[in-house]
Amino acid sequence: MTDPATPLSEVGEFSLISLITRDLAAGSDVLLGPGDDAAVLDVDGPVLTSVDVLVEGVHFRRDWSSAHDVGRKAVAVNVADVEAMGGRAQGIVVGFSAPGDLPVGWVRDFMAGLAGECAAAGVSLLGGDLTRARDVTIAVTVLGGLSGRSPVLRSGARPGDVVALTGRLGWAAAGLAVLGRGFRSPRVVVEAYRVPEVPYGAGARAAAAGATAMIDISDGLLGDLGHVATASGVRIELESAAFEIPEPLRAVAAATGVDLLGLVLTGGEDHALAATFPADVALPEGWQRIGSVHEPLDDSAVLVDGAVWEAPAGYDHFRPRGSR
Amino acid sequence: MTDPATPLSEVGEFSLISLITRDLAAGSDVLLGPGDDAAVLDVDGPVLTSVDVLVEGVHFRRDWSSAHDVGRKAVAVNVADVEAMGGRAQGIVVGFSAPGDLPVGWVRDFMAGLAGECAAAGVSLLGGDLTRARDVTIAVTVLGGLSGRSPVLRSGARPGDVVALTGRLGWAAAGLAVLGRGFRSPRVVVEAYRVPEVPYGAGARAAAAGATAMIDISDGLLGDLGHVATASGVRIELESAAFEIPEPLRAVAAATGVDLLGLVLTGGEDHALAATFPADVALPEGWQRIGSVHEPLDDSAVLVDGAVWEAPAGYDHFRPRGSR
Repeated sequence: MTDPATPLSEVGEFSLISLITRDLAAGSDVLLGPGDDAAVLDVDGPVLTSVDVLVEGVHFRRDWSSAHDVGRKAVAVNVADVEAMGGRAQGIVVGFSAPGDLPVGWVRDFMAGLAGECAAAGVSLLGGDLTRARDVTIAVTVLGGLSGRSPVLRSGARPGDVVALTGRLGWAAAGLAVLGRGFRSPRVVVEAYRVPEVPYGAGARAAAAGATAMIDISDGLLGDLGHVATASGVRIELESAAFEIPEPLRAVAAATGVDLLGLVLTGGEDHALAATFPADVALPEGWQRIGSVHEPLDDSAVLVDGAVWEAPAGYDHFRPRGSR
Repeated sequence: MTDPATPLSEVGEFSLISLITRDLAAGSDVLLGPGDDAAVLDVDGPVLTSVDVLVEGVHFRRDWSSAHDVGRKAVAVNVADVEAMGGRAQGIVVGFSAPGDLPVGWVRDFMAGLAGECAAAGVSLLGGDLTRARDVTIAVTVLGGLSGRSPVLRSGARPGDVVALTGRLGWAAAGLAVLGRGFRSPRVVVEAYRVPEVPYGAGARAAAAGATAMIDISDGLLGDLGHVATASGVRIELESAAFEIPEPLRAVAAATGVDLLGLVLTGGEDHALAATFPADVALPEGWQRIGSVHEPLDDSAVLVDGAVWEAPAGYDHFRPRGSR
């Protein structure tokens, strides 16, 4: 058993690979796992794929998130992209770069978090590459399938559709707001910032129910629905009364002075899903109506209660990835 | 047209993405390209996938390689992994991290090199992610298919098989040796270090001809054939007389004092392919015999002319990736 404090530079590449892959479980769709030049995954029909990179100091801080949290988040944010197409994530590959003085225990905890979230999402680790770099940099690519359905694009929303949401909004931004002020509570929002709670399976249920467009909310609801509105050539009207504002967000808004509706409408990193459905469709389990789709008007892709949403001062501080 | 000297920090993420994706060609197997939450690739049968990370200062230096070279190399080293399974690479996704002061022209030249090598390899860019980091870090994940064949593993070599090679050995290490001494010639080896010449298509031809095992030579022939010997439970005997030593390598060895056979047997980063074939199979075009497969002996997975190859002093300096 290697001492967790041992720096990576004193652990050989091959030892490290065997250390982190030895306890991995793989699904029956993994025809060949890590260890050869490439892995082989059995996907029924076309393959969905997407990549997300997490960089220390940009997407996470080692003093704010544990290695286990970062491992879970690296999986969750990628699986969310496949969910948003109406697909089912099946496997990931991980490019991991780290400085030589990173303790091997950090990598082990990261891998434990990654493996745990893979298990929760029904995803297998297919392979990886380990290299040196000054910053811890984690590039996860996800692969998945469509179960015989067509992908749900951003461009399919039509006037008359309903806009619906599943998952949380504003929680990660609230967590970041308190961490940025030196606090660690409310604990639920800090944990939401560290690891998003992606509604696994909700994307496929939406696709099966007939969703016309769908998107992963990574940069904030208004911004991401703006992409849907633009790609679809429509206007989206949100109804603020449709959002249930949970108590922890009220507490954060009261304590920090951040705008409560701003948190919900523009907070990033929660990885909820937003989708549009024909008006006559019964929304699947876990989805709730938040607005409607209309013919476009000039310069107003997304309206809130009939008006352009005006960002309060300090707005960008609510967006964990806003600085990119 | 953005000034190529403009730092990335002054170009918005979305502008940059549109800048680098607007001229991309995509194959007919790309059912959905970049721009949505995930891309969709049509793969016939199981999916091959692998990831390789290139880090500035570890895998390339901006004063030794142009951005165009790095873009080409990032594609080539990944496609080589699919070739080594006997597959056909079809698409890549790219995680790109860079400091804010990187000139946008570097990214544009990198993308031009990447697009050019994609075209040469018959591969489409499916998506990417752009983030800030202190080092330029490029994580490429490749996806491909098997054209109805089984993957060619490292574990399939059998006593009686022939060992064969396609592609170059020692060229990249020779290039690194001269660059490391402050020279820029012979130009052909410096270029070989900057961009490996991967024998595209040779892996699929080997698989079709009945190759029993195959590997991409990234870390040096002896080391990589050692993986084949171990995975297959066999001993591999190489015949040094089978290697044609090209003139540029002789020139580098004479000028620098590096061991000539060492360059060929242990030089990394050329991404040749080595494979084993049943003895009665006619080797496909471009492949040449370099040795044979035997029952294992103790502690000698790979022998050269019947003996364990002894590394001369300074051996690690020949391996561009040896320091990882």
